[in-house]
Amino acid sequence: MKKLINKPLDFVRESLEGMALAHPDLIHVNYDPAFVYRADAPVHGKVAIISGGGSGHEPMHNGFVGMGMLDAACPGEVFTSPTPDQMLAAAKKVDGGAGILYIVKNYSGDVMNFEMATELAFSEGIRVLNILVDDDVAVKDSLYTQGRRGVGTTVLAEKICGAAAEQGYSLQQVADLCRRVNLNGRSIGMALTSCTVPAKGTPTFELGDREIEMGIGIHGEPGRERTNIKSADEITQILTLSILEDSPYKRVVREWDEHKQEWVDVELIDPVFNKGDRLLAFVNSMGGTPLSELYIVYRKLAEICDQHGLQIVRNLIGPYITSLDMQGCSITLLKLDDEMIRLWDAPVKTANLRWSI
Amino acid sequence: MKKLINKPLDFVRESLEGMALAHPDLIHVNYDPAFVYRADAPVHGKVAIISGGGSGHEPMHNGFVGMGMLDAACPGEVFTSPTPDQMLAAAKKVDGGAGILYIVKNYSGDVMNFEMATELAFSEGIRVLNILVDDDVAVKDSLYTQGRRGVGTTVLAEKICGAAAEQGYSLQQVADLCRRVNLNGRSIGMALTSCTVPAKGTPTFELGDREIEMGIGIHGEPGRERTNIKSADEITQILTLSILEDSPYKRVVREWDEHKQEWVDVELIDPVFNKGDRLLAFVNSMGGTPLSELYIVYRKLAEICDQHGLQIVRNLIGPYITSLDMQGCSITLLKLDDEMIRLWDAPVKTANLRWSI
Repeated sequence: MKKLINKPLDFVRESLEGMALAHPDLIHVNYDPAFVYRADAPVHGKVAIISGGGSGHEPMHNGFVGMGMLDAACPGEVFTSPTPDQMLAAAKKVDGGAGILYIVKNYSGDVMNFEMATELAFSEGIRVLNILVDDDVAVKDSLYTQGRRGVGTTVLAEKICGAAAEQGYSLQQVADLCRRVNLNGRSIGMALTSCTVPAKGTPTFELGDREIEMGIGIHGEPGRERTNIKSADEITQILTLSILEDSPYKRVVREWDEHKQEWVDVELIDPVFNKGDRLLAFVNSMGGTPLSELYIVYRKLAEICDQHGLQIVRNLIGPYITSLDMQGCSITLLKLDDEMIRLWDAPVKTANLRWSI
Repeated sequence: MKKLINKPLDFVRESLEGMALAHPDLIHVNYDPAFVYRADAPVHGKVAIISGGGSGHEPMHNGFVGMGMLDAACPGEVFTSPTPDQMLAAAKKVDGGAGILYIVKNYSGDVMNFEMATELAFSEGIRVLNILVDDDVAVKDSLYTQGRRGVGTTVLAEKICGAAAEQGYSLQQVADLCRRVNLNGRSIGMALTSCTVPAKGTPTFELGDREIEMGIGIHGEPGRERTNIKSADEITQILTLSILEDSPYKRVVREWDEHKQEWVDVELIDPVFNKGDRLLAFVNSMGGTPLSELYIVYRKLAEICDQHGLQIVRNLIGPYITSLDMQGCSITLLKLDDEMIRLWDAPVKTANLRWSI
């Protein structure tokens, strides 16, 4: 293993220390328990948005803490769920009195711990709602996951909901919006190479010199198919059609009901994409794939969307939800409405996503 | 070779096509000869800034075209200088009547072709000045280079000079500023792995499983030393001290003299860094190294600068001047003055660098 690290066990902490040193105007870091939070937290009267998950997917989530996006992020060890005490401590730190939304990627550990944190926060008088992201069309049920995995749509949900919170949406409104973003977003990824977890020191899986894995998970979980290397156009075609031809996905998720004070089952069905839909197209690097190649993927993606009568009106291209040093990419398509477009365009100022009007 | 590409020979063109599709609000692309230019070019009365060089270093330079940075970028084939006709055509397209600054990285092919383009532009009545960037302290004279190579400071010069041009600086003022940024900036890089040029299909050089190369060039040119893998802290220490302990670097460069209408020799000497200096610290990924590792490097870099009484007042951390899929990093330190800080902070809106006040 060759990486720019010191002791593998210090990887997450030292990376956080570097972030804290680099961006003191934007974020502060609490180390025990570990969470990154807005330098100006709590923002009084604003719904606070917290996400988190295993480390190794940077810039998600730490790099998205700041004005217009997350109020806090809870990083676990590499590919390991953060713990409820991190999520609770973060909630206490950033609670501005208007409640907190936990945005949770659908992995068993994350789901369990965020649910526990939700109950703990409730018992301490902090209003919390939690919304799952389960947008990966590649496989149903996977290593670490019941149902579909949460991937690229998470980044888009954090941006859109962050803007909504900034504009004064109520907790219930932000939660409803987050659910809607998740329902309208679909993703799928692929790997050219494995990633290497620092503490393990060897590749998570083996791919031959001419092998790729379609439908890979962001922790190297098995995908749909291991196949011979194909051209960027062929790969993009397979990924994009997997999304466009995905059937309505029906599942039941658990959400916290503030009034009943209990978990309730919510049945969700993804709408399909239709001719004339406006899309946000997100082409993401798995970490080791350079920008030049992402634009080659985007080129074909734009062509296919055009052929299907789908209009890409916004895009995001770069490494935003990664898998350490894995080479490969993922594509996320999000069906937009006017409200989502307005919120996407709203200013954001974080360490790793930043723009203004 | 596993990459997200189609035919290797289409790599540059297809990546440009993807960029053009993704950012029609910011840039347009001319394909024959190839250059990327601001969608609103020419900006009348503003000095235009043009850079360029071999492809494979994305987002540099194409991703830096837009308000507050470059007016045009001329991409060559991978690791191959663009040609004078590209540079001349770009100059004609973006000339707003206030003259053009060519920012040229010090590689023999780039230098020769930008000099030729300067003369061609002059003969067509377009005012052009050209400034070299030669900031790599690793080695003097190298594959493709007489003197020091131009690397990370190029990104900073493009941002700072771009802001100056936006604020109405004259051509001579922008050129003088660019020269000053180059003199005050020093860089050095290292590689954990080689890069693979698409048309070649095999790694440019070989590194063993536990070998790294210190002082690497952005085309995989040999560096100072091939050594065993070290910790991130040790690597950062070696890189940083190479910069801080660099002697004043004296050389003669050629610049175009508008009044004499000829090339003149200009003697330049880099100032050294002194206690109390304010720095911009730029930690750059070579392409395949993820953000999490860059922050570990930044952490140690900040500590060393602090120990030396140097104050990091601005930073840039991410993949900005890359070498295809190479894993590794580079560090650039730029000694700032009030004017440079003000210009660094000024708004910028390009595909891959974007912020507002």
